[in-house]
Amino acid sequence: MNEQVVGIAASSGIAIAKAFRLEHPELTVEKTMITNPEHEVARFEQALERSKVELEGIKEYARKELGEDKAEIFAAHLLVLSDPELLNPIRDAIKNEQVNAEFALNEVATMFGNMFAAMDNEYMKERAADIRDVTKRVLSHLLGVMITNPGMIAEEVIIIAEDLTPSDTAQLNRKYVKGFATDIGGRTSHSAIMARSMEIPAVVGTKTVTAEIENGALVIVDGLDGMVIVNPTPDVVQAYQEKQAAYQAKKAEWAKLVNEHTVSRDGYHVELAANIGTPDDVNGVLANGGEGVGLYRTEFLYMGRDQLPTEAEQFEAYKTVLERMEGKPVVVRTLDIGGDKELPYLDLPKEMNPFLGYRAIRLCLTSQDMFRTQLRALLRASIYGNLKIMFPMIATVDEFRQAKAILMEEKEKLQSEGIVVAEDIEVGMMVEIPASAVMADVFAKEVDFFSIGTNDLIQYTLAADRMNERVSYLYQPYNPAILRLVKMVIDAAHKEGKWAGMCGEMAGDEIAIPILLGLGLDEFSMSATSILSARNQILNLSKEEVAQAIEQIINMETAEEVERFVKETLLNSPISAS
Amino acid sequence: MNEQVVGIAASSGIAIAKAFRLEHPELTVEKTMITNPEHEVARFEQALERSKVELEGIKEYARKELGEDKAEIFAAHLLVLSDPELLNPIRDAIKNEQVNAEFALNEVATMFGNMFAAMDNEYMKERAADIRDVTKRVLSHLLGVMITNPGMIAEEVIIIAEDLTPSDTAQLNRKYVKGFATDIGGRTSHSAIMARSMEIPAVVGTKTVTAEIENGALVIVDGLDGMVIVNPTPDVVQAYQEKQAAYQAKKAEWAKLVNEHTVSRDGYHVELAANIGTPDDVNGVLANGGEGVGLYRTEFLYMGRDQLPTEAEQFEAYKTVLERMEGKPVVVRTLDIGGDKELPYLDLPKEMNPFLGYRAIRLCLTSQDMFRTQLRALLRASIYGNLKIMFPMIATVDEFRQAKAILMEEKEKLQSEGIVVAEDIEVGMMVEIPASAVMADVFAKEVDFFSIGTNDLIQYTLAADRMNERVSYLYQPYNPAILRLVKMVIDAAHKEGKWAGMCGEMAGDEIAIPILLGLGLDEFSMSATSILSARNQILNLSKEEVAQAIEQIINMETAEEVERFVKETLLNSPISAS
Repeated sequence: MNEQVVGIAASSGIAIAKAFRLEHPELTVEKTMITNPEHEVARFEQALERSKVELEGIKEYARKELGEDKAEIFAAHLLVLSDPELLNPIRDAIKNEQVNAEFALNEVATMFGNMFAAMDNEYMKERAADIRDVTKRVLSHLLGVMITNPGMIAEEVIIIAEDLTPSDTAQLNRKYVKGFATDIGGRTSHSAIMARSMEIPAVVGTKTVTAEIENGALVIVDGLDGMVIVNPTPDVVQAYQEKQAAYQAKKAEWAKLVNEHTVSRDGYHVELAANIGTPDDVNGVLANGGEGVGLYRTEFLYMGRDQLPTEAEQFEAYKTVLERMEGKPVVVRTLDIGGDKELPYLDLPKEMNPFLGYRAIRLCLTSQDMFRTQLRALLRASIYGNLKIMFPMIATVDEFRQAKAILMEEKEKLQSEGIVVAEDIEVGMMVEIPASAVMADVFAKEVDFFSIGTNDLIQYTLAADRMNERVSYLYQPYNPAILRLVKMVIDAAHKEGKWAGMCGEMAGDEIAIPILLGLGLDEFSMSATSILSARNQILNLSKEEVAQAIEQIINMETAEEVERFVKETLLNSPISAS
Repeated sequence: MNEQVVGIAASSGIAIAKAFRLEHPELTVEKTMITNPEHEVARFEQALERSKVELEGIKEYARKELGEDKAEIFAAHLLVLSDPELLNPIRDAIKNEQVNAEFALNEVATMFGNMFAAMDNEYMKERAADIRDVTKRVLSHLLGVMITNPGMIAEEVIIIAEDLTPSDTAQLNRKYVKGFATDIGGRTSHSAIMARSMEIPAVVGTKTVTAEIENGALVIVDGLDGMVIVNPTPDVVQAYQEKQAAYQAKKAEWAKLVNEHTVSRDGYHVELAANIGTPDDVNGVLANGGEGVGLYRTEFLYMGRDQLPTEAEQFEAYKTVLERMEGKPVVVRTLDIGGDKELPYLDLPKEMNPFLGYRAIRLCLTSQDMFRTQLRALLRASIYGNLKIMFPMIATVDEFRQAKAILMEEKEKLQSEGIVVAEDIEVGMMVEIPASAVMADVFAKEVDFFSIGTNDLIQYTLAADRMNERVSYLYQPYNPAILRLVKMVIDAAHKEGKWAGMCGEMAGDEIAIPILLGLGLDEFSMSATSILSARNQILNLSKEEVAQAIEQIINMETAEEVERFVKETLLNSPISAS
């Protein structure tokens, strides 16, 4: 009773429910010789068709419930299902070898899958996983077998799994899935980010949760303290119900802050904005009292399709966001593609180190047609609200000057065509490369604003791929090196009378918030669902007080020391179950 | 006449000779049915055996003439020739399909090669290139065709090629090959580094040299100014002969400095040390007047073999280097493996971004057995000279403390076993990760010295893979961000009474040297062949004078501005052909 499994607190809240172990059954395929290949090919096409319809349905569900970026996964699966390089060999095998469709599919898909997986390369393994995921779906239709569909869960459960794939999480119905716990993953892994955006309590990286929890066992997931309790005694259940109630009460308090300004206890105002991926995400921004959009990731406009979006399509999207934000600031980041995010129709070369490669502004300054189309769409939309344009991955002053010059050229062209463009568009840059943080004093003379992109800044500054589990211990937002760079950027901006924001995960992190307030950060852009708790936290902080601790903090030796200090001196008392 | 092709000056000097176009002939394979499979398999085994013998020979030649790291390439080729996953399918195809060995080899090797190459991933493409290189060699034996062997060139030539593969450069005989010019590559590409270590003038990245130069044409390679002149008129030849003579005279002047100390015009001493890979490299260090070894890359001890080197093998290597350096400082870097350098027998996982991955100290702190063996060998060798131990890829203070604690444990263990260990071994770290440069003040309290590794520091600070041609414009040693970080490191070291060195390419660069002198760098470690020209340069510089320009330099906006300033104000007048 009351066995505990410790993990990483990935999404706040408490959930108490029965365990549902999510495991996918193996589909067994036998080889049979067939006499009517045309009939067999037809059967294969039918299974393909059903799979496509099913995937379209899931994609739409994901788009509505979870946003464009989650739907993207299924768009990729649909592309696999239309790939002649995969499908034709299957059709040929059925016809030439007179074998059943299941066998032909399994043979060809396994060959491709192994070819990719054998590369023993993370990127290739993901492609292999896509092929396997899709093959399983088509096979299930051929075999008439139901695959475990997390979207079909219809009672209140806590999911226990080794890990949740994008395909799994995109189907979770938050009405029934109360929480989840996994063996692997960290705070920035896909499943953790999903859990936070769905507001489902989650604990990840437990290593042993699937080994220790049986189907149907009563489980408590404590997403506040990173703990899973198995078979709790009634008094422990009661204690956690109280902790849950306290957390709910806190959230209800926060909800009252939706129309408040974010002003520290001693009267300093900061702006709490949200990161969005699509115009639909504006709903969440408004519902959570966002004071602006601090990062509009435009790459979703370019993804899950087979050609570049037109100027008109982009114009519509930007106009919609600007209009719906009703004059509140909207910072649009120009296309940040390449690296881990690729567009099949651009045919970008695979790189040995994509995070250090040809991406974002580097690509846009070369592929100028694509870049100019986006800038024209933005400029035309600028009159519908308060637009700010931001360039990603700026490493040198030259790059910023080039990008801005292209923007100015397009502006003049539009004006000479008689098109009205807003006159007061601020033009800024992401600070996500160490060089641009170190050179912030020089950049500050050229830009209208900075937005610090901590996800990348941390991985470059510590030289550790944040997607690589083996070096994830080096992904340290509180490392004093990061705090010093952030300080350089904010100080440099203020010296030139410019503003500095932050749009990485760190901006919504409760340990980081007091430090960032003390450093003088002007704008915090985060997941919409984090805004209210961040506002509550800042209302209770004194900026002058935290500012006094800054000198001490940036002279600390390690991230652990910083975290301990903030927890002990700058945080409100946590909710406790004991 | 006098047509010019402009490229990147990759290796200093002037060469004038006939063009030799290095192109590899296509080997045509026809399919024939055979009646005696056993005979055919035997023919295949014989060709394999001959290829192995040939490769062993080239490997030894490379080891003696060019050093351990170049020999490594052929060790990799030999491993391919012993790989049953490649060889068994070939033997099976001969036996089961009754086809000739050439056809079977070509089919299987092409399949594997395409499989890797199709991945469109730089790393995989390299593996594909290995397989193709080896296949060609075996095929040439089966077909009785000679493949173009750059090692067979026996008249004075300048090689003109699209690019030179490691396999090509490792065979160049510097007696006959006077210089080379290639279409692709940059200053840090493999062929450029090779040219400098062989002291052959070279111009790379010309884009068009193979299109513009015919076999046998008279060619001048100007490795000082990055120019190739085709069919020069006699007066141009004469001008370049004079330029060549001036350069030779300069080199002869430099040679007189071999036993001099490196003291600036105004009396400041700095240490000019060399980077080495093997004990044999000490010859070059002594011949060029190195005042120490600033970087002994120990990974070559681990490469080109099928198991870890023993403590005894390592002890011998370290002892040899320490003894031969006769009390001069020898900085040994502990194993820096992973990333782009892999050891087949360690079975490291392939990573999506190996430069941001599990490598060097990160790996050693986990694989402690391997690390402790190396430390024991170093400690035991310490009494034979002036040993300094340096840990690579340190990102956090914790990592340095852990590594040093392990070293101290092994020291105590050895001492308790009655083994004598030097008492005064300095323990330092590479500064090659932006975080450790930013935190240099904290690290300086813990280390005995810093050595700045600019190759990595630049690529992380600018977030640009230095091996990726598309972003190579961002590999900027003179970017003020880099200079500021270098300044932070040197200032932090001096504040704590420690010394700071540099062991990247930048330490031997003539534009960087005045700046580094002005910043107060204590030790410059470079290719042995760069030491004398660097010494000559420093003897003619006033440290006080360059120090006065530092404030201005680090406040410049771009790398170009820094380069222009140094060229105009801090360099001696260049050698000119006009």
